[in-house]
Amino acid sequence: MTARETRYFGKPVRRNEDPKLLTGRALFVDDVDLPGMLHAAFYRSPYAHARIRSIDVSAAKAMPGVVAVYTAEDLGDYWQPGPLLVPPPPVHKMPVFNKRTQVPLAKDKVRFVGEPIVLVIAENRYIAEDALERIDVDFEPLPAVVDVEAALAPDAPLVHEDAGTNIAAHVIQEKGNWEEAAAAADLIIERRFFYDHGHAAPMETRGIVAHWDTRMQTLTVWDTTQAPIPIRNGLAGMLGLSEHQVRVIAPFIGGGFGPKIMMFYQEEVLILWASVQLGRPVKWIEDRRENFLAMTQERYQIHEAKIALTREGKILGVWDSFLHDTGAYIPYGLTVPLNAQCTLLGPYVVPHYYSEFKAVFTTKAIVTPYRGAGRQHGVFVMERLLDIAARELGMDRTEIRRKNFIPPDAFPWDNQIIYQDFAPLVYDSGNYEPALDKAMEMIGYRRFLEEEKARYRAEGRHVGLGIVAYVEGTGIGPYEGARVQVQPNGKVIVATGVGTQGQGHFTSFAQVVAEQLGVPVEDITVVTGDTAEFHWGTGTFASRGAVVAGSAIYEAAKAVREKVLKLASEELEVAPEDLELADGKVFVRGAPDRALALGDLAVKANPLRGAVAPNTEPGLEATRYFGPPRGSTASGVHAMLLEADPETGFVNILKYVVVHDCGTVINPLIVEGQIHGGVAQGIGNAFYEQIVYDESGQLLTASFMDYLVPTAMEVPPIDVAHVETPSPWNPLGAKGVGEAGAIPVGPLFAQALEDAFDNAFEVTEIPLSPQKVWALIHGK
Amino acid sequence: MTARETRYFGKPVRRNEDPKLLTGRALFVDDVDLPGMLHAAFYRSPYAHARIRSIDVSAAKAMPGVVAVYTAEDLGDYWQPGPLLVPPPPVHKMPVFNKRTQVPLAKDKVRFVGEPIVLVIAENRYIAEDALERIDVDFEPLPAVVDVEAALAPDAPLVHEDAGTNIAAHVIQEKGNWEEAAAAADLIIERRFFYDHGHAAPMETRGIVAHWDTRMQTLTVWDTTQAPIPIRNGLAGMLGLSEHQVRVIAPFIGGGFGPKIMMFYQEEVLILWASVQLGRPVKWIEDRRENFLAMTQERYQIHEAKIALTREGKILGVWDSFLHDTGAYIPYGLTVPLNAQCTLLGPYVVPHYYSEFKAVFTTKAIVTPYRGAGRQHGVFVMERLLDIAARELGMDRTEIRRKNFIPPDAFPWDNQIIYQDFAPLVYDSGNYEPALDKAMEMIGYRRFLEEEKARYRAEGRHVGLGIVAYVEGTGIGPYEGARVQVQPNGKVIVATGVGTQGQGHFTSFAQVVAEQLGVPVEDITVVTGDTAEFHWGTGTFASRGAVVAGSAIYEAAKAVREKVLKLASEELEVAPEDLELADGKVFVRGAPDRALALGDLAVKANPLRGAVAPNTEPGLEATRYFGPPRGSTASGVHAMLLEADPETGFVNILKYVVVHDCGTVINPLIVEGQIHGGVAQGIGNAFYEQIVYDESGQLLTASFMDYLVPTAMEVPPIDVAHVETPSPWNPLGAKGVGEAGAIPVGPLFAQALEDAFDNAFEVTEIPLSPQKVWALIHGK
Repeated sequence: MTARETRYFGKPVRRNEDPKLLTGRALFVDDVDLPGMLHAAFYRSPYAHARIRSIDVSAAKAMPGVVAVYTAEDLGDYWQPGPLLVPPPPVHKMPVFNKRTQVPLAKDKVRFVGEPIVLVIAENRYIAEDALERIDVDFEPLPAVVDVEAALAPDAPLVHEDAGTNIAAHVIQEKGNWEEAAAAADLIIERRFFYDHGHAAPMETRGIVAHWDTRMQTLTVWDTTQAPIPIRNGLAGMLGLSEHQVRVIAPFIGGGFGPKIMMFYQEEVLILWASVQLGRPVKWIEDRRENFLAMTQERYQIHEAKIALTREGKILGVWDSFLHDTGAYIPYGLTVPLNAQCTLLGPYVVPHYYSEFKAVFTTKAIVTPYRGAGRQHGVFVMERLLDIAARELGMDRTEIRRKNFIPPDAFPWDNQIIYQDFAPLVYDSGNYEPALDKAMEMIGYRRFLEEEKARYRAEGRHVGLGIVAYVEGTGIGPYEGARVQVQPNGKVIVATGVGTQGQGHFTSFAQVVAEQLGVPVEDITVVTGDTAEFHWGTGTFASRGAVVAGSAIYEAAKAVREKVLKLASEELEVAPEDLELADGKVFVRGAPDRALALGDLAVKANPLRGAVAPNTEPGLEATRYFGPPRGSTASGVHAMLLEADPETGFVNILKYVVVHDCGTVINPLIVEGQIHGGVAQGIGNAFYEQIVYDESGQLLTASFMDYLVPTAMEVPPIDVAHVETPSPWNPLGAKGVGEAGAIPVGPLFAQALEDAFDNAFEVTEIPLSPQKVWALIHGK
Repeated sequence: MTARETRYFGKPVRRNEDPKLLTGRALFVDDVDLPGMLHAAFYRSPYAHARIRSIDVSAAKAMPGVVAVYTAEDLGDYWQPGPLLVPPPPVHKMPVFNKRTQVPLAKDKVRFVGEPIVLVIAENRYIAEDALERIDVDFEPLPAVVDVEAALAPDAPLVHEDAGTNIAAHVIQEKGNWEEAAAAADLIIERRFFYDHGHAAPMETRGIVAHWDTRMQTLTVWDTTQAPIPIRNGLAGMLGLSEHQVRVIAPFIGGGFGPKIMMFYQEEVLILWASVQLGRPVKWIEDRRENFLAMTQERYQIHEAKIALTREGKILGVWDSFLHDTGAYIPYGLTVPLNAQCTLLGPYVVPHYYSEFKAVFTTKAIVTPYRGAGRQHGVFVMERLLDIAARELGMDRTEIRRKNFIPPDAFPWDNQIIYQDFAPLVYDSGNYEPALDKAMEMIGYRRFLEEEKARYRAEGRHVGLGIVAYVEGTGIGPYEGARVQVQPNGKVIVATGVGTQGQGHFTSFAQVVAEQLGVPVEDITVVTGDTAEFHWGTGTFASRGAVVAGSAIYEAAKAVREKVLKLASEELEVAPEDLELADGKVFVRGAPDRALALGDLAVKANPLRGAVAPNTEPGLEATRYFGPPRGSTASGVHAMLLEADPETGFVNILKYVVVHDCGTVINPLIVEGQIHGGVAQGIGNAFYEQIVYDESGQLLTASFMDYLVPTAMEVPPIDVAHVETPSPWNPLGAKGVGEAGAIPVGPLFAQALEDAFDNAFEVTEIPLSPQKVWALIHGK
């Protein structure tokens, strides 16, 4: 399907969901207020690493208004580690895998500051918080494990003693033979790169309301999760309930970005369990400090990397060995470091590749995917290596990239390693040169190099240009499903299992259906994230919503369209080919007065008398599932003009350009919004934001006073252009776009900054900051 | 499937639902208690027929605690007649059809005592009821229309002036040519029969709680309805909502019996509408007086009937013309009189049949189906005609029946008229003689006639025997659906759209699934009557639950079984034919240690990584629909020994026998329970219960003081035996049994009573009563 032939698909339709959001009528978890509702607060570890000698909750329990105080002792069978969300991948070499997952409440030992130890339930949150003050825990502090390299020293304190090591996992993937590449090389570049912790900092923190109905024996849960169905399935299992007894609703959510996929947060298990215990609704809304301490984070990796090239700038091979800080536990498995490993290869032909990583336990917050999910690190390493190589070879930085691009006729392109979805890392389609050309044109690459740069320098201004490329694996399986129904009032309801955190699903999914059924987008209601409406699927992550759920919706809408045509053909006594769907009606082509409203057809399809024929289904409804054989590969080029102030180290982004290929664009407004948001988060992660732990494992940046999220002042206007190479692996031709904006901003910043100072220094660490830029400029 | 080869199907399994019901943990509508819930009461017409000159609600509105007072004026668009539930049937001759359906609140005129005029909403029911006292309605009384024959007089007052007649419908159906039969007959019997009003008198009255969630824009409704899905669909339409915005839950219900199918009761529309208006939950629980006045009723028909026979007792033809009292409106269409018309033919070969009826408007409660749904009348007429004919011909009453039975090799048997499902009245299968023989044996027919009768008479005791036969159209379409899912804990969830009012669905449906999946019945949870769980289907009526929903469940369970076998075959590397399902596991035949738990297979079928293959579905779930081509025809013979007291007219049932054919029996305990309940209701309707209106249309029997429902004291032990002629028209071979017990009790009573007095009088009216029996005996 191409946008040219369409009425709704591919059009910049305004978002169906916005009136509700803008007028304050959207339901968020904290809006849920139930009669008899209790409130929870957590006593969390003040130590990064300590033994718990004893816990005294008697004073807290005695407080008026306190309903229950739970420690690990009270949990019985529930005091056990959570499941591993994603099992270890079937890679060839994995010498170590230590599955260590969190427990609901710490018992003998705590492993990061903020780990829950005691749960207090009270009549209101004030009382619950006050009761925390009366809890007395006797700790024996242990040395914190903060630095991943130190964590691997023979005498390092162990985060999990029973593992006998701080290595959580050790994975090696290889393509070809690096040694051969190195032997044949004219040039080998070798560097050490560091990418520090960042935080997703969603506008809405986590929150849960659980309501156990003792008479119905059902548990209704409102949860800020990105994956309501797996949450339902998993928590039902943990609580000994059947899945159908648990309904999880992920209503409107103020930002997910990955950390809200996690399952299961200790709080999720506990709030549900407490509601069942007490037979009353229980609410917990995370406060901002808790969000910084206990929501999962990302980003800390140290890479030792080498690239081997010919003198003409052809890549012969890449060698990379990195340490990945997984925090105190590894519930999500290896998705993040696998993504780093895979995304490093980028849009380039890399004949030989050796990549090895160790995931390392530290006494810090747990690491799970956050927008980009490890891809940042891979792109940072590769793009930096290419920049340095271009300099060494005296080549133009765009030329070295262009020379190594996978050619457009080489797809599908097999990278011969395993991706996070456990399938071979094969790129479906792509065309990288036009994107590079377009970005160069939009940023004014030639003009900058040939004229403007010199002019800036003459004015004493440190303006630099950055331009980087990347690919992004998106839209992985296993599958999503959807139900599409034309209702008797002619309106269409679409239900799917993925949750929504602002992606515009209510509109882009509606466009997919509108196109098939000829019903205006505003007459199509999309329901997401409610297991009572649709209870199969995995969730919103890995830039997969439009690709996987969108394709399931497309298939379901197509099936409904076929039902409509069949029934209308019988009713109007006209061949289906002679019928047309538009404006909520079925018309006879060339005789527009011979029309049936879809709603009236829906009524006819669901009679109260007569018989519905064998092997048919009543109504105008269809449910379909879609599982892509492999993920679809998005790609792009970002470019920026940046001016740095050598006195303060502060930067000002003069221009920001994104040329992106997410395959077929369903709604350009939404795609561009996704890219804008991603770039904003990328800029924050590259320059403003940094999670800082001190050597005792205390988080020094646990508020927005210390953790600086960019505001509208710091984010420049962003020009976006599209290249469309439709994915052959889904019926929409779509590729994901949710993470694209955030991925390549680090190396882009680095390159532009170096350019602004004519390569007087080399940037090998992200995030930057005014202080760090100042130090680089001044050689400190 | 026959019971012999089965493990669960056909077995007298104890009911899954009983522990919940017996321990008071089952949710009924009145158990629903929501925060901020308001309570409704209705001001109802004290007149059967009157014009409303004016309504003054100002004093009621002014009462503290009264939240709203609504009259028709306030309803705007909602003041309009309801839809016709079942459209007029496609019969050959229908000279008149006046669709007149009720309005939510009466505006200019009231047409029966109890018709709602004003709705009061208050903080509690006490205040609401008190406010009713302050409402002042100025009525202009009109003459009531009570007698259906008088209603047809040229100068009769009209219930609906605009119809120009009190005839609601006039229908003629013919098979062959009665005149020919009459001309050829050796004997023609002609009689007038009367069957008066009865009331279903469910233990639980009607009740509704509606909760409009202003933020979510969803309406949740708990309703004592037998048809939650059509209720949802219809009310959503009337309220201008989409179907998916409305969830209707029919929880446990204390008896339905037909009147709770009705859609839409005025109260249903109004309570929902009021909740939307007020943005608060609103509850209305019908009180017993309201139930007598305003819940629909049944039964009043006057038949003029003739039967033509040869001297050998062969039926040549039947002629029947009857008046059917439809009450003030006709929302349900013609189901009841059509059933009377069709069921009259019974298990007999009737070569020529002429049947004509007029449905007549009166100023009484609306008539819609009640257990038996018109079948009683047809059976009463036919069985009475045969009894009288046998007497006239000097034949044994069982012989005349046996002689006219449709022979077992004549099925499918086409009666050449149209049934209530609008399909030709074709009997699927049957074998009537064995049932008659069995009943004769069980009641001791020969012994009674040859020995006991004389002995009783010698003792001065008036003991008589009755024995009658009937068929019952059951299990009509259009369709039902079901979803069956094996959950990861190995338990199975089954969801279907029909509601439950005590039929044992939670067990018999579970048995259907247990048989397919080899899972114990107690591990199978059935969910019925919740549109959030299953939103396609029609409802529980016409003895169709087991046949139609049961078959959909069977098909869905079979599909899940196939999924299980396919996946297990892959996992165990064994051909599906070599696998066996039992005890919640899949075994390799002959190697019981090679087994996989169904729950583990369910987890494997729903992976979090990898890809779900194209055109497959995740999980171990299937949804299937079943629409029978035609209904299945149950049949039976009832026999009783009855002793009457000539001094008091009181009767004592000495023995009661039912031989029933409901095709394949899923659970004999449940089938027998259904028959027991039906017979109890039949005995009530035949002897104890009578709805009495005076000539001004006032109901004289509006409480259990006046309307006598039989208790355990009046209902004898009932011996049940089964004949099984499986229906070829559904995969279970099932036929309905819900109404069977109630249908033939009237003519059975009549025959036994006549026998007890050696045919000294003729019974042509039902119900009987001690007074009427005394009057018959004494010729008064």
